[in-house]
Amino acid sequence: MFKVSPKDEIFFDFFVATAENACRAAELLEELMINYVNVREKVKIIEEAEHECDKQVHKILQQLNRSFITPIDREDIDLIAKELDNITDNIESTAHRFNMFNVQSIHEDAIRLAKLITTCTKEVKALMVELKNMKKSKVLTEKIIEINRLENEADDIFRSAITKLFVTEKEPLEVIKWKEIYDYLENTLDVCEDVANIVEGVVMKHT
Amino acid sequence: MFKVSPKDEIFFDFFVATAENACRAAELLEELMINYVNVREKVKIIEEAEHECDKQVHKILQQLNRSFITPIDREDIDLIAKELDNITDNIESTAHRFNMFNVQSIHEDAIRLAKLITTCTKEVKALMVELKNMKKSKVLTEKIIEINRLENEADDIFRSAITKLFVTEKEPLEVIKWKEIYDYLENTLDVCEDVANIVEGVVMKHT
Amino acid sequence: MFKVSPKDEIFFDFFVATAENACRAAELLEELMINYVNVREKVKIIEEAEHECDKQVHKILQQLNRSFITPIDREDIDLIAKELDNITDNIESTAHRFNMFNVQSIHEDAIRLAKLITTCTKEVKALMVELKNMKKSKVLTEKIIEINRLENEADDIFRSAITKLFVTEKEPLEVIKWKEIYDYLENTLDVCEDVANIVEGVVMKHT
Repeated sequence: MFKVSPKDEIFFDFFVATAENACRAAELLEELMINYVNVREKVKIIEEAEHECDKQVHKILQQLNRSFITPIDREDIDLIAKELDNITDNIESTAHRFNMFNVQSIHEDAIRLAKLITTCTKEVKALMVELKNMKKSKVLTEKIIEINRLENEADDIFRSAITKLFVTEKEPLEVIKWKEIYDYLENTLDVCEDVANIVEGVVMKHT
Repeated sequence: MFKVSPKDEIFFDFFVATAENACRAAELLEELMINYVNVREKVKIIEEAEHECDKQVHKILQQLNRSFITPIDREDIDLIAKELDNITDNIESTAHRFNMFNVQSIHEDAIRLAKLITTCTKEVKALMVELKNMKKSKVLTEKIIEINRLENEADDIFRSAITKLFVTEKEPLEVIKWKEIYDYLENTLDVCEDVANIVEGVVMKHT
Repeated sequence: MFKVSPKDEIFFDFFVATAENACRAAELLEELMINYVNVREKVKIIEEAEHECDKQVHKILQQLNRSFITPIDREDIDLIAKELDNITDNIESTAHRFNMFNVQSIHEDAIRLAKLITTCTKEVKALMVELKNMKKSKVLTEKIIEINRLENEADDIFRSAITKLFVTEKEPLEVIKWKEIYDYLENTLDVCEDVANIVEGVVMKHT
């Protein structure tokens, strides 16, 4: 029977903190895209949030190497930590593109995707909170299903945004820029789904 | 000495079923590209084949978590299942591009790559059939070499197709669209090669 | 206490040889880009260096499967081997683009990135030499920090190169070509950083 001892809780606490970091980066990205002013400064703050996330992941891996016994498989801890970091990496990469490409205004569809990312990272955080109580697997399963649903919703927005982009935008350089921005936004939601899938595997092993 | 018990065979049977699914998706993609009509409906059917494949992979992972002993390393089972799924994912992503990009007609080189994918997924299926009889490693090795050869052939077609694309296509938006379609087609064959490489590692461990 | 036996040294020797291979490929790429003549022949030689690297990795994996006990975790040996190969793969992919895209002359920023790749692969090789003496971890840590620093430097060059590209290059097809070349160059340095991060994890486990 699976039971988390107080000493083991540290991993789950670290996961929650790292997911909170991803939530914050997502909110900063959404705010940047909605209030599209002082872009350079706002990107800088997202960059710092990403460095914060790197440090969190480093702490998890250090704890992992110090721990003789772990509450879930070592490779799953490693994988969850890295994929949580990957969410924030993708958010940072998106933010950098607005500077790099000298983007002047933001597409509505991109804002819709950014909002989905904010919602989805919150679900990922809730998933991490629930992971500690794996046996209440009903809540966990609901979260996993919801993250998958959000990713499917994002896929539909992504595809129709790309179709629109090629039809309405006549300037090829703008198509190149926005295609890459949409790819990063959509990929961010894919990574959230990856986290959900890893957690689903962990739950399978423990229930 | 390596010996597959009847109970263990279930993993190999699942692998074969998942590879068959990839074969079917490949045939559907080839047919879509050769008879380029009713595109939306045909893409829908490929999308359903991909969902079928997701379910197969889910069954493999459930079985993996239920099994105390496995015929090959757990991480190899996990990896093979995920990479087989990845083949079908890439086929689906290619199919979606024809809709998203509102593609009007299909390049000959793209059809050549689609045919190679059909051939290569059949080899991957044969590889999965043979995996059960790992000790007859000669057949397995031949399949691995053949998949590598097909991937090299695809590389050559891919590279010359891209060169041609940039020389003959003057419309930048068309270049962007077709470059991405070629990238997905070539990547599908790369993933087939990844499966072959994983199997090669499994064979090394057991012979 | 961690101690490498003579028999175990073979893995570290293989790592050094594979990293040397990456260094050689990096030097060949830099030379190709600086003396941009006989491109087809020079790409061919880089392609051969990559095949050499594939063979090295194959030897490491064979040795791994023959070894009952390993000096560091099996999955870390596997991962280091594959990421070292990945460096050379990215160098080869960059080289191929000059042919495929029929590139006529080389951007200064791209040469700067190629030089960073040469420097960084040398650091990766030094890292592999030091890995054998893990307990002198100070030198290892310095190498890891230096590789991270080089990757950050490359990020800055990459971002400003992309900004420049979109501002100065009016021909969309040239933007598409150079954007992909810059992506490959930057990704090569990312993979060097991945190797450093894996080694950092290995050091954590053994000190």
